[in-house]
Amino acid sequence: MKMREIKTVEWHDGSVRIIDQTELPGKYVLLDLKTVEEMWRAIRELKVRGAPAIGIAAAMGLAAAMKRSRAKDRRGFFAELRQNADYLASSRPTAVNLFWALKRMAAAADRIRDKPLPEIQNALVAEAQAILDEDRAMCRAIGEAGDALIRDGDGILTHCNAGGLATSGFGTALAPVYVAHEKGKRVRVYSDETRPLLQGARLTLWELQHVGVDVTMICDNMAAVVMKQGKVNLVITGADRVAANGDAANKIGTYGVALLARAHQIPFYMAWPSSTLDLSLAAGGDIPIEERGADELTSFGGMRIAPAGIKAYCPAFDVTPHGLIAAFITERGLIRPPFGKNLRRFARPDKILNRE
Amino acid sequence: MKMREIKTVEWHDGSVRIIDQTELPGKYVLLDLKTVEEMWRAIRELKVRGAPAIGIAAAMGLAAAMKRSRAKDRRGFFAELRQNADYLASSRPTAVNLFWALKRMAAAADRIRDKPLPEIQNALVAEAQAILDEDRAMCRAIGEAGDALIRDGDGILTHCNAGGLATSGFGTALAPVYVAHEKGKRVRVYSDETRPLLQGARLTLWELQHVGVDVTMICDNMAAVVMKQGKVNLVITGADRVAANGDAANKIGTYGVALLARAHQIPFYMAWPSSTLDLSLAAGGDIPIEERGADELTSFGGMRIAPAGIKAYCPAFDVTPHGLIAAFITERGLIRPPFGKNLRRFARPDKILNRE
Repeated sequence: MKMREIKTVEWHDGSVRIIDQTELPGKYVLLDLKTVEEMWRAIRELKVRGAPAIGIAAAMGLAAAMKRSRAKDRRGFFAELRQNADYLASSRPTAVNLFWALKRMAAAADRIRDKPLPEIQNALVAEAQAILDEDRAMCRAIGEAGDALIRDGDGILTHCNAGGLATSGFGTALAPVYVAHEKGKRVRVYSDETRPLLQGARLTLWELQHVGVDVTMICDNMAAVVMKQGKVNLVITGADRVAANGDAANKIGTYGVALLARAHQIPFYMAWPSSTLDLSLAAGGDIPIEERGADELTSFGGMRIAPAGIKAYCPAFDVTPHGLIAAFITERGLIRPPFGKNLRRFARPDKILNRE
Repeated sequence: MKMREIKTVEWHDGSVRIIDQTELPGKYVLLDLKTVEEMWRAIRELKVRGAPAIGIAAAMGLAAAMKRSRAKDRRGFFAELRQNADYLASSRPTAVNLFWALKRMAAAADRIRDKPLPEIQNALVAEAQAILDEDRAMCRAIGEAGDALIRDGDGILTHCNAGGLATSGFGTALAPVYVAHEKGKRVRVYSDETRPLLQGARLTLWELQHVGVDVTMICDNMAAVVMKQGKVNLVITGADRVAANGDAANKIGTYGVALLARAHQIPFYMAWPSSTLDLSLAAGGDIPIEERGADELTSFGGMRIAPAGIKAYCPAFDVTPHGLIAAFITERGLIRPPFGKNLRRFARPDKILNRE
């Protein structure tokens, strides 16, 4: 089955073409960015978001700008490269993938700094392309691993957006859905809207609809009844950080979904790239949980939905205990319990994984 | 402890004073309604809402209007009474309490139709007052029964709004909270915002804040994590319809909350007046569940939050199986399992209830 792919970030005539995510889900707007200034604004204003996608976009933006460099000599070229990279790095000061990608670009140029400038320019384009290709391949590998869990006709519930819009490819939690769909399996997805920021409603629904996957919106509080009605065969979410014992932090609400899945004997899976595993944390209690301001709950698109002066509790993430998780889906295959042993083995890729 | 009470509907200088609930939670606006036309609009436009409150408001509106009647004779007075009652009954065509209250008013006048008109006018005012007083007493009795379950310092989670704003008094689910608060117990309430229509955020938060009860807003998907943190000692919700076996329908999301409470070994209670019990329904599967249009999910205050053309599943209620319910809280005491036997006994009030 030919799938209409989501191209979150791609080359287009020497420019970087992105989907303007601030216009979603209302409008599908593509932006062609030529300069580092344009890319800086796009990252700053969340037109492109999601850690992997930001890193890729910045790398491609840097390559596109340096391709157009008018620097007369090597010294000028490398000064401009450094200046542009520093500038792009200032767009979202806490995005780790952004710094990582820009450092990798600088290193690629440095490795051949004595070659002719056009060759360095091409190497930068090639390095940005490699970052994109690696991300895309990783998403696909997660998808292939997860696809093994999906049968024809399955209903899949997901929470938040761990989809293609945050990456260059299939995303993480949605990757198995995309691969299953591509292989011609009929899948039905139920997407929690995911309060307070509604990433499920705004992003997951949009991208699944965009590629033609059967998707139904529900409120977070409807997951239980949809499960009870037998409409859900498995749950797949992403994960933000996984501790050594398999406890996993993800978007607020994930823990509740895992409990509801357990109550209905529905397997609960989490999909993530290997960089998400943090063996320095023994258990979920060690994962720091960001608390957001009350406004994120009490206001909605500028409109107050709760009385002034009300207290609101707004953790951005919660931790799902490993005992509720059937398996992890990674780019290097599935990880089953016992997680303590199997995650240590996973972290040493010289050992063969217990693939299924 | 003197509590600032919510006066959803009350007499004020011969007018009916209501809280304009369409202005909540942003503004606290009181309206003094003198004519049946004003009351008709207030009910029609949801300025007063909740079945008990609508019935009381209509009865009081009718009494206030008839008190000002300029009818010259008995025939004219009763024609005007019937006309006004029919008119008020047309404000919300499916509100059972509205018809019940207006019929009761007409019957009160009919019983003394040969007495002088001023006496009939006073009887109408007294009958409306009786409807209000009975509702207030029922709410308080539910509150007294439920208060027995609350210890000093308890955290109580609730879903939707089954509070004073839907009645003339303490409401149902919130009545135990108000009684406990009044008795000087320290209680902390966690209020689910209750998507899609946000009755928790808009109404429950407002009324608890108004009377000075410690209340914290959470998104529906945060209930699990608040429970896990040990902040919740009991859950109390309302119920819309209770079947003979104890299965109970309530606002969408209630079933999920009940499952999460079970997973954390937190007792789950439902508070309701005896009129909610429907012994003609054997079990929860017999309770018809209204499905609402997709727009209720996909739009929010006129703003789209999901892509156009998306499918959305929007049941207005769900059914909590009796096995998840620790007890029912009614105006005639607590009802414990086994519910099949104890609800039949409850329906025959000649038998003594197993009170605690």
